[in-house]
Amino acid sequence: MNYPLPIAKLIESYMKLPGIGAKTATRLAFYTIDMREEDVTEFARSLISVKRDLHYCSICGNITEDEKCAVCADDSRDKSTILVVEESKDVMSMEKVREYHGLYHVLNGVLSPMEGTGPDDLNIASLIKRLHDDTVKEVIIATNATTDGEATAMYLSRLIKPAGIKVTRLAHGLSVGSDIEYADEVTLLKAVEGRREL
Amino acid sequence: MNYPLPIAKLIESYMKLPGIGAKTATRLAFYTIDMREEDVTEFARSLISVKRDLHYCSICGNITEDEKCAVCADDSRDKSTILVVEESKDVMSMEKVREYHGLYHVLNGVLSPMEGTGPDDLNIASLIKRLHDDTVKEVIIATNATTDGEATAMYLSRLIKPAGIKVTRLAHGLSVGSDIEYADEVTLLKAVEGRREL
Repeated sequence: MNYPLPIAKLIESYMKLPGIGAKTATRLAFYTIDMREEDVTEFARSLISVKRDLHYCSICGNITEDEKCAVCADDSRDKSTILVVEESKDVMSMEKVREYHGLYHVLNGVLSPMEGTGPDDLNIASLIKRLHDDTVKEVIIATNATTDGEATAMYLSRLIKPAGIKVTRLAHGLSVGSDIEYADEVTLLKAVEGRREL
Repeated sequence: MNYPLPIAKLIESYMKLPGIGAKTATRLAFYTIDMREEDVTEFARSLISVKRDLHYCSICGNITEDEKCAVCADDSRDKSTILVVEESKDVMSMEKVREYHGLYHVLNGVLSPMEGTGPDDLNIASLIKRLHDDTVKEVIIATNATTDGEATAMYLSRLIKPAGIKVTRLAHGLSVGSDIEYADEVTLLKAVEGRREL
């Protein structure tokens, strides 16, 4: 006996989500049957809305409902600094710190020869265009500390530096609260290299 | 900065699912943005369909799209045996064994004084009605091996036995492939009690 079609289809849909296998998908599908009608309708509506109502900010590439994202639309932000990140999620993470008041630029990906992602596939051209009008004094590259993230940082730095703009990279080192004992060698090396005078 | 409304709402919806916290919900929501349009539409449609098109089988309480579930509609099934389970999922699990050819009855829950679930909240009245016409010779109670499941089994057995129908319970003992070393005491006790001659 197979599952009734509506359940089978819902299981299939849940399985398309990352990290959700057949067992979890089945559990979620059966749970959905017992959910309140309005919660399920709201869920379905949000799914559609996320595809229909969101697009990339025309300036920085961040995800937004409007033409400009909340940061680009905010006139109180420091327009002399642009922090470059891989994904919109990273903007949210940075904003949680509440200490950065400049602008952002979202690449929407990272250079990856392995996956065939080149500079033209990323939101790089519009970054260079933003640097033309002399307001920007510093570009902080905050791509992830992965091989691809590092390569992208190097690429961007070589592209931007000739224009006479300061290019910086987020510090790498030990996470706050972490044990030296458990740190990997590369992180330890970066922590030694980046040591600061007390 | 908060997430744009469509994402915030989708995160909230994902968080209503069991075992999905804020971090996973956020990851899933951002993943959804990059999913193929048709997959997301299909997902939304399945959610709605699962609430709209599914209902309980008029005979056994199993979940179905039609008036009768696939088992009850199948004339080749052995009508002298009814296996009683807590949830529709359990029917699917039993069907996977391919060795049981009788009918089912889904309680859609379990007696639970802690959660205030009494006999009237379960699909019990219709089970008793099914036993009236003398075709049923045996009721196999396959509620879970939990305290509530055991209590429900006892309750049903006392209710059905006076009608002269054989009432059995699935065997409890060691899982196949398991180590005695790691079995809990109650399971071991049940295994000893239920020992069979070789």
